[in-house]
Amino acid sequence: MTTQRRNFIKSIALLGGATIIDFNLKAQSIMRKTSANSKLQLRWAPYDLQMKHVFTISNSSRKTTPVVLTSLTYDGVTGYGEASLPPYLGESQASVMEFLKKIDLSGFSNPFHIEEILQYVDKIAENNTAAKAAVDIALHDLLGKIMKQPWHKMWGLNTGKIPDTTYTIGIDTDDMIRTKVKEVEGQFNILKVKLGTADDKRIIKAVRSATQLPIAIDANQGWKDKHEALDLIHWLKEQGVVMIEQPMGKYNLEDNAWITERSPLPVFGDESVQRLRDVQKVKGVFTGINIKLMKCTGLHEAWKMRNLAESLGLKVMLGCMTETSCAISAASQLVAGMDFADLDGALLIQNDAFDGARLDKGKIVPTDEPGIGIKQKIKIDYK
Amino acid sequence: MTTQRRNFIKSIALLGGATIIDFNLKAQSIMRKTSANSKLQLRWAPYDLQMKHVFTISNSSRKTTPVVLTSLTYDGVTGYGEASLPPYLGESQASVMEFLKKIDLSGFSNPFHIEEILQYVDKIAENNTAAKAAVDIALHDLLGKIMKQPWHKMWGLNTGKIPDTTYTIGIDTDDMIRTKVKEVEGQFNILKVKLGTADDKRIIKAVRSATQLPIAIDANQGWKDKHEALDLIHWLKEQGVVMIEQPMGKYNLEDNAWITERSPLPVFGDESVQRLRDVQKVKGVFTGINIKLMKCTGLHEAWKMRNLAESLGLKVMLGCMTETSCAISAASQLVAGMDFADLDGALLIQNDAFDGARLDKGKIVPTDEPGIGIKQKIKIDYK
Repeated sequence: MTTQRRNFIKSIALLGGATIIDFNLKAQSIMRKTSANSKLQLRWAPYDLQMKHVFTISNSSRKTTPVVLTSLTYDGVTGYGEASLPPYLGESQASVMEFLKKIDLSGFSNPFHIEEILQYVDKIAENNTAAKAAVDIALHDLLGKIMKQPWHKMWGLNTGKIPDTTYTIGIDTDDMIRTKVKEVEGQFNILKVKLGTADDKRIIKAVRSATQLPIAIDANQGWKDKHEALDLIHWLKEQGVVMIEQPMGKYNLEDNAWITERSPLPVFGDESVQRLRDVQKVKGVFTGINIKLMKCTGLHEAWKMRNLAESLGLKVMLGCMTETSCAISAASQLVAGMDFADLDGALLIQNDAFDGARLDKGKIVPTDEPGIGIKQKIKIDYK
Repeated sequence: MTTQRRNFIKSIALLGGATIIDFNLKAQSIMRKTSANSKLQLRWAPYDLQMKHVFTISNSSRKTTPVVLTSLTYDGVTGYGEASLPPYLGESQASVMEFLKKIDLSGFSNPFHIEEILQYVDKIAENNTAAKAAVDIALHDLLGKIMKQPWHKMWGLNTGKIPDTTYTIGIDTDDMIRTKVKEVEGQFNILKVKLGTADDKRIIKAVRSATQLPIAIDANQGWKDKHEALDLIHWLKEQGVVMIEQPMGKYNLEDNAWITERSPLPVFGDESVQRLRDVQKVKGVFTGINIKLMKCTGLHEAWKMRNLAESLGLKVMLGCMTETSCAISAASQLVAGMDFADLDGALLIQNDAFDGARLDKGKIVPTDEPGIGIKQKIKIDYK
């Protein structure tokens, strides 16, 4: 049997499956009336993402990314979540599982109390933002499934207005850069190039030798002198670059603000803006902010950050780590109407564990399925 | 592989692919049949609220309040909304209907695009915030009904944590004040007293002669001297007052800030804070803000104002005008977890047109019905 035919049969099977799932949900909601002692049950499983290419940014390289996948069950309905743990962010599978073990949801009989549940989770420890996001995402998936709605609908967003996602080209040799660019030719409308090295111009020239697509730059705090950075930004603009992310150190708001004020391109804060409480501080420092679920503890806070940023006149973009289609699909619920999207995380890996938001004409588009809109592709043994 | 075999596989692939596409198109066109000709149909009806008592605040008295009720239908589902028009706010039934006539929703085939629909409505004219709220509320009711969910659930709020609503005692004679207070004895846990007159102490003493309930004060910009206002606030605290609303003129942020800084009670801005864009300006001016649907164009912006205020460290309260249980039930969706509630609007009228949020042990509690959770009590002829 050919692959196409197998896919065709799979599609038909999936269509049939949808009806069964719907029926099951109905049966469950009937059952729910009798089960008054429902509890939120959180489980998890470590999982290692295999990357398609060695991934290099301004100060690290890697071939795998550890994640922890979560499941949250209530009354027979299960939502899925994910903590992605790029090593430079300080969380590990062990620290995430340690954190998740401390969570006792027995005090919450109503899963709809998002604010209170997540406030409780947030107060367990100071950091662990990815672990917290894994709970937040699973809770959103669960609630969306119970309500039978995708979050983009509940947030009233127009999925016809999703910005093109950038596709990330890591720091590499000229040949590898050209190979990577050619490999995705026709799939993306904008690329993201990681700079912040001594080789920045060489890298851009290598990209430009392979494509004329617009480029977003992520300097990852890699630039050390504001005057040189500004000169470079002017040069980059001439090369068809359309935006700059985190030019200088995350605590160096003064120099970042100096650059933003003079920059001919919009400048987005990433490392400088982790959570809701940071948004206000960067008004006047950056043109916009990069919101990432793993930095800000998940969708609930991300939505607030977006609204706060827009209220303050800041532009907004949504970013990601290397993640499966679980966390990416969660993010995709929120991305419509934003200024930039950087949601290529699941495209960079070989062993995605979920089907969900898909690349469609250069955009990462959420499904209309309930919750975060995903289906498991492989069996995960949540414990 | 032979050419023949490749061609064979190609053919099968094409067949498979074509069938899938064809099937999907059919499924879509079936789905679309019910919604292809679906349009958002906005209708309205003027309605006059008969008040139980003549209602006096610092600069006006009235026995009726004009409102315009709205209905918004899509695909056989109808949501309801309301514009309440206390005369001092500058909108009338005529101006609301004039505004509603200008709205052409034919460009919006998807009612879920809340942000875009409401942005379009907002841009039709500068003011008309109550008219805009009438559209926003009907849209939320409609969408909640389509999604079969109440908004408090979609916002993740704990309806077990709703603040007591204040019950408003207007400016009146001592006897009438005592009568009004006695009339509602046992129903409320906090009263709201309108001050900003030459008679403020007399009014408070009259209330205190009838009840020991905590009191919230609404000065409605009625105080003219900051030193006298502060002295009065100290006296009011001794009388069991727990908060002060809008002590001085709405544009006089300086004196309001001066009072807030020195006040032993939290001070909330009301007239000074109409919309989302005003929230930032009053950080440092007031302890908190009073959000009202009729001021801020409805639930969508109110939710953003709440989140922005909380992000800025401002307290939040939810207020109302004289309204039916339509607008009150809409507000009740949003009130859980706020610092104060002032949602007695529908309790002050004789001819409520809706059943919805109810007074329960001193709190206005939304129902668990979808949308804003209301049912029409009387037939309204929407045109």
